[in-house]
Amino acid sequence: MRNILIIGAGRSATSLIKYLLDKSEKEDLFLTIGDLNIQNAQKFTSGHPNGRGILLDVFNESQRKEAVENSDLVISMLPARFHIEVAKDCIEFGKHLVTASYVSNEMQLLDTRAKAKGLVFMNEIGLDPGIDHMSAMSVIDGIKAKGGKMLLFESFTGGLVAPESDNNLWNYKFTWNPRNVVLAGQGGAAEFIQEGKYKYIPYNRLFRRTEFIEVEGYGKFEVYANRNSLKYQSIYGLEDVLTLYRGTIRRVGFSKAWNMFVQLGMTDDSYYLPDSENLSYREFVNSFLPYSPTDSVELKLRHNLKIDQDDLMWEKLVDLDILNNEKVIGIKDATPAQCLQKILEDSWTLDPEDKDMIVMYHKFGYELNGKKHQIDSKMVAKGDDQTYTAMAKTVGLPVAMASLKILNGEITTPGVQVPIKEEVYAPILKELESYGINFTETEVPYLGYNPSTVVG
Amino acid sequence: MRNILIIGAGRSATSLIKYLLDKSEKEDLFLTIGDLNIQNAQKFTSGHPNGRGILLDVFNESQRKEAVENSDLVISMLPARFHIEVAKDCIEFGKHLVTASYVSNEMQLLDTRAKAKGLVFMNEIGLDPGIDHMSAMSVIDGIKAKGGKMLLFESFTGGLVAPESDNNLWNYKFTWNPRNVVLAGQGGAAEFIQEGKYKYIPYNRLFRRTEFIEVEGYGKFEVYANRNSLKYQSIYGLEDVLTLYRGTIRRVGFSKAWNMFVQLGMTDDSYYLPDSENLSYREFVNSFLPYSPTDSVELKLRHNLKIDQDDLMWEKLVDLDILNNEKVIGIKDATPAQCLQKILEDSWTLDPEDKDMIVMYHKFGYELNGKKHQIDSKMVAKGDDQTYTAMAKTVGLPVAMASLKILNGEITTPGVQVPIKEEVYAPILKELESYGINFTETEVPYLGYNPSTVVG
Repeated sequence: MRNILIIGAGRSATSLIKYLLDKSEKEDLFLTIGDLNIQNAQKFTSGHPNGRGILLDVFNESQRKEAVENSDLVISMLPARFHIEVAKDCIEFGKHLVTASYVSNEMQLLDTRAKAKGLVFMNEIGLDPGIDHMSAMSVIDGIKAKGGKMLLFESFTGGLVAPESDNNLWNYKFTWNPRNVVLAGQGGAAEFIQEGKYKYIPYNRLFRRTEFIEVEGYGKFEVYANRNSLKYQSIYGLEDVLTLYRGTIRRVGFSKAWNMFVQLGMTDDSYYLPDSENLSYREFVNSFLPYSPTDSVELKLRHNLKIDQDDLMWEKLVDLDILNNEKVIGIKDATPAQCLQKILEDSWTLDPEDKDMIVMYHKFGYELNGKKHQIDSKMVAKGDDQTYTAMAKTVGLPVAMASLKILNGEITTPGVQVPIKEEVYAPILKELESYGINFTETEVPYLGYNPSTVVG
Repeated sequence: MRNILIIGAGRSATSLIKYLLDKSEKEDLFLTIGDLNIQNAQKFTSGHPNGRGILLDVFNESQRKEAVENSDLVISMLPARFHIEVAKDCIEFGKHLVTASYVSNEMQLLDTRAKAKGLVFMNEIGLDPGIDHMSAMSVIDGIKAKGGKMLLFESFTGGLVAPESDNNLWNYKFTWNPRNVVLAGQGGAAEFIQEGKYKYIPYNRLFRRTEFIEVEGYGKFEVYANRNSLKYQSIYGLEDVLTLYRGTIRRVGFSKAWNMFVQLGMTDDSYYLPDSENLSYREFVNSFLPYSPTDSVELKLRHNLKIDQDDLMWEKLVDLDILNNEKVIGIKDATPAQCLQKILEDSWTLDPEDKDMIVMYHKFGYELNGKKHQIDSKMVAKGDDQTYTAMAKTVGLPVAMASLKILNGEITTPGVQVPIKEEVYAPILKELESYGINFTETEVPYLGYNPSTVVG
């Protein structure tokens, strides 16, 4: 029996746990699921002979060490900042570790010790980061293997609502952490490279410099730039690439409407609003508009945002009931961003029968034998329900698959790593296909940075 | 002979030193001017029997302590962050201290010890903060003394170029620290109160929510909101006021044009541009615009900023030679803000014969015997030349006057303080008048927050 310890039984752990439990008998696995909430920990394993839920507080050192010591491999699904103590225990007791989080500096520092003990510390093996790395490297390595020289890499991912559940004017609902959506793009300019030129988009322009993409069968989407497109340039081996751009996918029209909140200042998370608990939605809006003894908040808002009488932007605001004077924020010492999140959650929370959808889109431009080529690679995954969501599947399945392959000795290279090696990505991408997560690659004419969209 | 130690002989110290030297014989003063640059320290006192310049490094503890110990009063004209060690020495050796800087938390902590030793630690007694405190409190105390209840306080200050030297399309030149001008308004939303409502303006809207003011003989100016208008609410005793607003004065049209830089992202100081040393002005501009294989930077810029063919905004940009492909930034690892500053300094540096100008404007609304009233108080000060600038006079003279009055026992209340007590502001405001720094107070109809400008 191989013991797997899964720490954190939140929304992203459902598909991960199901995958491993389903294989537990055949693969001789026993799952211990540790969570601060014992009900959470037990709900997935109740009645299953190969799993159990335990109360686990990662800040309780003896509890944590005991759980790690009794396992063969640890999966940490905690928020990234809580991994490090678990990781150190894994070093101490000689256990493999798998996470879906970005490699922190502290995690990276464990590389030498992990290697010395022959331990695989696999990180960034969820969706984004995770499937994006694997699907990109699979194509990039293929291009390089046939002698191609990479010219362009663009990569976009979005967590969206599935078309059958897409029933508001924003074509958007929260399918993951709403706070991340409200704060998206903050903290510095978006940096990327277009045709060899460094380009920068400040936050206040981010949601107006979008580009359109199309996914067959799903129609048009739009993309806004991620903050740091250059992060993986060297990891992917793309030092000489002319265009490097990463972005977030939304339905067409979302970003321009979202920009209204940015322009008003409602996404600011740096200060607190006095008496926010009793602030009505309407008062919240009014605090970003000039005082008037007579003019309505409606007209001031239309004027401030230059919204014409017949502009759909207005209907999008009305759709959120954002000018309601009865509904109150109800949160003490809330920042503008927290107030906005509250208002949006009223409208953008998934209904019980709603399904989510993940869209991923890569463009690979390259030169081979003096000719320029482009491959577009696209993936759409839909959730089954609100337990086995597209997000939980795309985050959890690669984590689960990597864990089993490590235990089975199919992934062996030790050290702190991300899934960019063929040893890792090839078998996992292949297995993901049988779970409906597959990429369609098509050859398209190479356009470079698309000239039809350059003046945005 | 009373010994005054002046630390820091920069541009803001000229009028301060002249005032004290001019009075040194009659008042029995000896000035020791300490600066890291010995030439700087000596240039104002050369040949004068009552002054000398010395090399003084505030980080050299024995040098600093010796200089403080040998003085009766210390004036620190260093940047605010360097005051604290000097202040601690003043406590140790029992010396009064005067600065033109905001009271830091560390400085405030010395209050008890300063009081115990009977020492006056006078801060914020320059222009802004300084003359603004004094001129405001003088009127507020007067209103309260006659039984009035304060309703509104708005206060605006600007460092500008004098009309006779105002010869560029921006109607602006750097008369003080250019970096502060480039970064103005960053770091959070502007907060203020209008007619009892808290209002917030995000940075990306700050330079488009301006208001107009008029100063007789000087025409129209515009005002953009300072970040924190509420800072002095309790210090000024304005807890119940309905409108509280502080702002920065510019010539009409400056802010809307400056907003072009904000929108492009050029005022960002949070990241470094690769190879900024060799970046041309044109390339700098282009890095904030989308890539195009064919379109000119000119057209992309016009399109991005929605500048029509006949819009003066364009001429303002051309005036700065910002699209020049020959001129280079020439600064290693420069942020966008540093690059922009370099470009602006080419055009906005004062010529040798240029004069600067300070404008200050307060509005006081109050209720007395059931009627509403308003007093507007305005001050304009012009520089004599580039040594005795309006900035040096308005910053340095109150510092000098306060220092002498402390030595002469006219200002006696001990402790860490700012000039909001009549003991301090009344004699200094009176003496400033003889140096051409005087406020004109006029009764105007009370309008509350000006309804003609509410929808901005």
